[in-house]
Amino acid sequence: MFTMQPIGVVKSPYTDTSQIPKGCGASHEAEGALVLLPEFEPGLMDIEGFSHLYVIWLFDRAGGCELSARPPSDDKPHGVFATRSPRRPNPIGLTVVRLLGREGLRLLVAGVDMLDDTPILDIKPYLTSIPAGDLKRGWLAEAERRKADSG
Amino acid sequence: MFTMQPIGVVKSPYTDTSQIPKGCGASHEAEGALVLLPEFEPGLMDIEGFSHLYVIWLFDRAGGCELSARPPSDDKPHGVFATRSPRRPNPIGLTVVRLLGREGLRLLVAGVDMLDDTPILDIKPYLTSIPAGDLKRGWLAEAERRKADSG
Repeated sequence: MFTMQPIGVVKSPYTDTSQIPKGCGASHEAEGALVLLPEFEPGLMDIEGFSHLYVIWLFDRAGGCELSARPPSDDKPHGVFATRSPRRPNPIGLTVVRLLGREGLRLLVAGVDMLDDTPILDIKPYLTSIPAGDLKRGWLAEAERRKADSG
Repeated sequence: MFTMQPIGVVKSPYTDTSQIPKGCGASHEAEGALVLLPEFEPGLMDIEGFSHLYVIWLFDRAGGCELSARPPSDDKPHGVFATRSPRRPNPIGLTVVRLLGREGLRLLVAGVDMLDDTPILDIKPYLTSIPAGDLKRGWLAEAERRKADSG
């Protein structure tokens, strides 16, 4: 067992999970802020030079865990580790955000898909991408194709 | 405070941090495995369809935390949240691996940069990349340029 403590919170326009765009083709362009606790300010030095950041956060309002998840983008269940379901063994969320600017302890970002006041565990620079041509997206690509065919 | 428990361990060729390629241009092609605990096997359903996975893991052998980090790729200090330093407020690591295959509870992967027996907290599918042209890599790009100029 390991204990974690928040380094800050996400400020987001979303106060209820129903407001967060989900499923195939959901676009996450919502703006928000990552607000750090004052003692962590030295940890932000030079962060302004990065265009994108990883935010590692806690699904603090997700109850329990289900190893078989039924995501909004498909009508079939999939293993929780093949989905972004909040009901995970360790309720850790991961989001890539675009850094718009910094005001002291506040990082202004685009691309938030967390609820307002979500606890942040860590922030890391996003350094490299997998080339799009090398990426296989499993059941999600199939679900998208099925939806496109039926539309 | 939140408690986390490992869902499995990383099997890696690295038993000492000095063996792990670090710094500018370090290539992470080492092969290894993510070995889950038996109770989590249902969570792996359909994971074989994804080419790349995020692994969220614990720096279980990193001592303490330093908010100002001196990474191997630069001779200047940077805020810990602008680096991948192991000495973080919450010692969480994040690695993108390429999925080579699955044998029951073992995911065979390429791209491990963790020590052998590192505890795994979560696995998620890698779904989208930021286009390379949109990416700014801050102090790391500058350090790489300085090194290229002096070489």
